Amino acid sequence: MASTKPIFIAVIGAGGVGKCFLSQLRDLAVRRPSPKLSLCYIATSRKALYNDDYSSINLESAIDTLASSSKTPQSLPDLVEYLTKAPGKAIIVDNTSSQDVADAYPTVLKAGVSVVTPNKKAFSGSYKLWQDIFQASAASGAKVYHESSVGAGLPVISTLKDLVETGDEVTKIEGVFSGTMSFLFNSFAPTSGGGGKWSDEVKKAKELGYTEPDPRDDLNGLDVARKLTILARLAGLPVESPTSFPVESLIPKELESCSSGDEFLEKLPAFDQQMDEKKASAGDKVLRFVGSIDVATKSVKVGLQTFEPSHPIAALKGSDNIISFYTKRYGSNALIVQGAGAGGDVTAMGVTADLIKVIGQIAQ
Amino acid sequence: MASTKPIFIAVIGAGGVGKCFLSQLRDLAVRRPSPKLSLCYIATSRKALYNDDYSSINLESAIDTLASSSKTPQSLPDLVEYLTKAPGKAIIVDNTSSQDVADAYPTVLKAGVSVVTPNKKAFSGSYKLWQDIFQASAASGAKVYHESSVGAGLPVISTLKDLVETGDEVTKIEGVFSGTMSFLFNSFAPTSGGGGKWSDEVKKAKELGYTEPDPRDDLNGLDVARKLTILARLAGLPVESPTSFPVESLIPKELESCSSGDEFLEKLPAFDQQMDEKKASAGDKVLRFVGSIDVATKSVKVGLQTFEPSHPIAALKGSDNIISFYTKRYGSNALIVQGAGAGGDVTAMGVTADLIKVIGQIAQ
Repeated sequence: MASTKPIFIAVIGAGGVGKCFLSQLRDLAVRRPSPKLSLCYIATSRKALYNDDYSSINLESAIDTLASSSKTPQSLPDLVEYLTKAPGKAIIVDNTSSQDVADAYPTVLKAGVSVVTPNKKAFSGSYKLWQDIFQASAASGAKVYHESSVGAGLPVISTLKDLVETGDEVTKIEGVFSGTMSFLFNSFAPTSGGGGKWSDEVKKAKELGYTEPDPRDDLNGLDVARKLTILARLAGLPVESPTSFPVESLIPKELESCSSGDEFLEKLPAFDQQMDEKKASAGDKVLRFVGSIDVATKSVKVGLQTFEPSHPIAALKGSDNIISFYTKRYGSNALIVQGAGAGGDVTAMGVTADLIKVIGQIAQ
Repeated sequence: MASTKPIFIAVIGAGGVGKCFLSQLRDLAVRRPSPKLSLCYIATSRKALYNDDYSSINLESAIDTLASSSKTPQSLPDLVEYLTKAPGKAIIVDNTSSQDVADAYPTVLKAGVSVVTPNKKAFSGSYKLWQDIFQASAASGAKVYHESSVGAGLPVISTLKDLVETGDEVTKIEGVFSGTMSFLFNSFAPTSGGGGKWSDEVKKAKELGYTEPDPRDDLNGLDVARKLTILARLAGLPVESPTSFPVESLIPKELESCSSGDEFLEKLPAFDQQMDEKKASAGDKVLRFVGSIDVATKSVKVGLQTFEPSHPIAALKGSDNIISFYTKRYGSNALIVQGAGAGGDVTAMGVTADLIKVIGQIAQ
């Protein structure tokens, strides 16, 4: 029963994740010739590439051709109109972290175009946007998949959805949701004792490319809060926004107003003693930056906690993420997923795997 | 876009997993009214219940009604014929561990009927049966899902499929795949040192219901070998059968011929010294019963290995499973999945989650 109609794919964003995704899409199109995957549109914030007859852009050379294209991106309403006229089902792959693109999902989905994305903004913004997205999807039958919005390619969203949809009762979700925070605390407060100065570890993490250009964008905890918002909502809690629950920032108050990340890093050593005191107060336990959701008490929080060295969260390595699902069926031992939760290739993997799932459902 | 045609479900097997599945199916039918799920057939090895007009058996009372039914099960060819005449797509949920039912999958799939099952036999028998199953599925478009054939409801098969289908290169899979073996070695050789006598631990495991009625059915390693066969094949290795690679049995040669599990347990203490010697020879490491697949060298093996106490495999608790996927994208830190890998509810959860995925693909 080979599907005959092609699937039309529009890709927005061609940065780190976008480039890895295009490479995976190219291989996928070769390995699975049916249904034919037609990359009919690709755009960055400034340039675009598309064919009026919906024929596929050459996947081998898409990035180079895009760089030399003189076309500008279509507005999102225009893009939706273009895709609804395609001779087959269409999917938008949003590899940006743009709130504007996210805000358009309800319109996209209402028009019958599916969405696959690692973009956290759509699912961790206002609760109204979340409701609009899933209502639009239910009404039109268009799909929306976002595995890589939490833990990159790790099976986190899919596992939580399986637990909920099969009727398990999720009682608690707990974990380390930031590769940056994982790296920082595994180095600053290793289970074996010791560890470097806090400010040195932050500098090292930045040098290794583990932080955002301004490390405060990791240290403020908002990235973790966004991921917790998504998981809490999937578990049934109508969390209003990522700022509607307690989030502990590791940016000293005095440094919030620094004009740059460099100025912040210069002044950070003066606050090393504060972090050393926190580490010392953990005693035989170790300090970790975690997010947790207690479903029964509807409590969501992000911040420092202490763990026995033998606890899986304490024993994490490198910049790995770990996510523990406590449920009625799984009892006292959690269902645990662990591994790299950031990086272009593994993030794109989650996007590609979602794409395959959506194709399986919409192919005609 | 509510689907209008009902989906017809035939359930074979109403034991521990089957009963839990029926309970989850009942809740699912209430939560997701569209497409309508019609349980049109249910059978054990001796009794059956079905309606000639394909109307749904009452899900609340199915087990009780089945027990008092005077109908006998249809032959598998008759069941396939019955299902292909249903006014909508059909799915067989095989909750048995029967080789006979497994052998019929190619015929079932060829007829366009999908299969969802925790039954390991179909996927770990001869390589020819494996090929026949997936060729039949590809030819007809009928789906075959078997998440619970490895690690029950843990996302093991789905994760491996995502890795492979998105083009990652799986280099090694390693883990503890048996709840029984996990419990036995976590008690017999805890990371903290000490531990009881081997024969006592085996007896305790049997009393707690963690072993098969005859514990030798766990200790021979065949159950783990079957799971390894499935994962190796999904990773691309054409493993001929679960007996075509080295599997270490923990049944002393002298006790292989015992006429019963009870006789085996009676005579086992005489061999405690052998196990104590193995434990002692591990030195600072701990002994664990693991399965591993090295994809590059095409080497699959099952048996005792030693691990540093800080290794995730050593740190496992209770009767949990752990599965580590080493891949090109994930690098030196594996993608790890961990949790309960046996039990009626979590096994049925994998079956129900698969059912939802198949429905999403075949609903019209």
